[in-house]
Amino acid sequence: MSVTAAAGFRAAGVVAGLKPSGTPDVALVVNDGPQHTAAAVFTSNRCKANPVLWSERTIADGTLSAVVLNSGGANCYNGPDGFQTTHASAELVAELTGGQAFDVAVCSTGLIGQPLDRPILEKGIRAAHAELSADGGPAAATAIMTTDTVAKQAVSGGDGWVVGGMAKGAGMLAPALATMLVVITTDAVADAATLDTALRAATRSTFDRLDTDGCMSTNDTVALLASGASGVTPGEAELTAAVTAVCADLAEQLWHDAEGAHHDIAIEVTGAASEDDAVEVARAVARSNLFKAAVFGNDPNWGRVLAAVGTTKAAFEPEHIDISMNGVKVCVAGGTGVGAPSDGVDLTGRDVHVLVELNAGPATATVLTSDLTHDYVHENSAYST
Amino acid sequence: MSVTAAAGFRAAGVVAGLKPSGTPDVALVVNDGPQHTAAAVFTSNRCKANPVLWSERTIADGTLSAVVLNSGGANCYNGPDGFQTTHASAELVAELTGGQAFDVAVCSTGLIGQPLDRPILEKGIRAAHAELSADGGPAAATAIMTTDTVAKQAVSGGDGWVVGGMAKGAGMLAPALATMLVVITTDAVADAATLDTALRAATRSTFDRLDTDGCMSTNDTVALLASGASGVTPGEAELTAAVTAVCADLAEQLWHDAEGAHHDIAIEVTGAASEDDAVEVARAVARSNLFKAAVFGNDPNWGRVLAAVGTTKAAFEPEHIDISMNGVKVCVAGGTGVGAPSDGVDLTGRDVHVLVELNAGPATATVLTSDLTHDYVHENSAYST
Repeated sequence: MSVTAAAGFRAAGVVAGLKPSGTPDVALVVNDGPQHTAAAVFTSNRCKANPVLWSERTIADGTLSAVVLNSGGANCYNGPDGFQTTHASAELVAELTGGQAFDVAVCSTGLIGQPLDRPILEKGIRAAHAELSADGGPAAATAIMTTDTVAKQAVSGGDGWVVGGMAKGAGMLAPALATMLVVITTDAVADAATLDTALRAATRSTFDRLDTDGCMSTNDTVALLASGASGVTPGEAELTAAVTAVCADLAEQLWHDAEGAHHDIAIEVTGAASEDDAVEVARAVARSNLFKAAVFGNDPNWGRVLAAVGTTKAAFEPEHIDISMNGVKVCVAGGTGVGAPSDGVDLTGRDVHVLVELNAGPATATVLTSDLTHDYVHENSAYST
Repeated sequence: MSVTAAAGFRAAGVVAGLKPSGTPDVALVVNDGPQHTAAAVFTSNRCKANPVLWSERTIADGTLSAVVLNSGGANCYNGPDGFQTTHASAELVAELTGGQAFDVAVCSTGLIGQPLDRPILEKGIRAAHAELSADGGPAAATAIMTTDTVAKQAVSGGDGWVVGGMAKGAGMLAPALATMLVVITTDAVADAATLDTALRAATRSTFDRLDTDGCMSTNDTVALLASGASGVTPGEAELTAAVTAVCADLAEQLWHDAEGAHHDIAIEVTGAASEDDAVEVARAVARSNLFKAAVFGNDPNWGRVLAAVGTTKAAFEPEHIDISMNGVKVCVAGGTGVGAPSDGVDLTGRDVHVLVELNAGPATATVLTSDLTHDYVHENSAYST
């Protein structure tokens, strides 16, 4: 399972002491080869954390031999020392594994603006290196958790080759939030360009459509490393499908574990003139605090869906829109038709499906979001205090 | 005070019975002239309520003799009968006042998708007409309240002429939320084009920069009516200044009464390359749920400010940004300088001032917002149930 499901990878997760809670906080994933091709995508936030600034450079040549990750500090906007800490941690991993610092990606998650204790981090990296093992994936997945309540892991693959991954966070990638960190490994043989194509296609339809609270993180990173240890070279489509399956599985797990959520809300938009239109409309609904608060209250307030749709530039005519909530078509032809009574909608369960039929074209998209709850407010008002 | 402060106007507010609470719910404002010039701006939401669709047409010729308003129903997306109800209410006002239906603007506020009871509304309009008086402004201001806890009224003016206004709601105009309705009256002599210029300039720097929860209403309307009863023709700049003063005053009152807010947060952006950049950055911060929840928790989490700034397209270098909270500069040069300790920031009071210095140009703007609180979630999860 996880990042050690594929041959050629070892991982570990340890308690370094970065988190006051004393839970695991440093993870290491090492690619033992024979190949070390890789791809990565990062937050589109223009204010980027030090590990993102570092990792963007390391991935430029399509090679990674290891990824080191820490929770307990975002290492972001904490002065020049912060970037040096990122650099030093990559150097240490390279020294321990016999590689190059520029082949080591670094990921951090936690509070912005706080110093990241370099000696503690380095102690953790040494401990993680000592514990590296071919079944260390679950420990690594546990060490990157912050407000996550469960470790997130997924596996897919093809005939003779495997794709596995781990994730932490509760959000979307571009824009993105809550510091989502994802490491995916495969023992397939693939060059860096193929990995890049597969990863971008996979994230576009998975993590990019997860939008739990509309906020974009400074630290989001999704890395894909290939060891080639299986000796199998899948076709690009086959590889993309497997990577997409792992990303979709991890995205679902992030969605179900979103901070404070009581409902998992899927906003499906059909009949859009383009896929971009469908995503724009679904995202607008997913970002309406009024709609999200209504769902928390089990209130099928479709007027707030319609009001959100109206804020977009998507092609549609207001009087052609149909809206269904959990299978009940409550709004027909933008209210000009006779919709079913709202009180026939049952929102008491965890799963909420909102279908917005624009009737303006053939395209479709689904964005996954959460309701706006007292628990969300509580978690995010008390997080750093 | 209010909409009857200016000569030439009468107003009333009555209980029609549209609201289950039994509080006043129909208001009428009548311009007795001698002139009937007017201007209006509306929500930029593409899904518009019936009264907005109607009023957009009535204002096309720059003439209004009356505005009729109701709370207790948005009259939005409730079938073809809804538009007929809007039309019928304008016809009734015209009949009662001896004017033309196309000179009567209509405003509604309440739930989307619900029928608006025409007989009850018409009964209310007749009652309001019977109670019209030159000191009926406060009654009218009370009758348009929904979740407002206080009536909002303001007065300004010049030598021998007056501008007065009333407002309900808790939001911004374009995009806009929570159904903000504003009626402003003046006894100045002014043609429709001058009124339009003054109103657009005023709303652009006031209501357009109030963004309490990022949601845009289907019903927002701001109307400005001139009676000319003072006989004074102020200069355009003078008139614009007075209308802006009334709008700013009303916007501040809306801000202080935003649903569920515990903190009134002013996001000031300076050093922007353009005013549009300044507004974009301030609005991005004002829409960050993570930032707003942190303020609720009295937590000076400036990392969430920075993360929001980074989502914009504004011109800036991340390492040039300074952030101050309530006068304490907690982030210097994007964290590369030494900021003051966050624990020196006191957020326990109602007023919070966030200063984002982009150091990228001369432009500035301030957006007013609220924190994200348990009360906000409660009010908006329980509103229609």
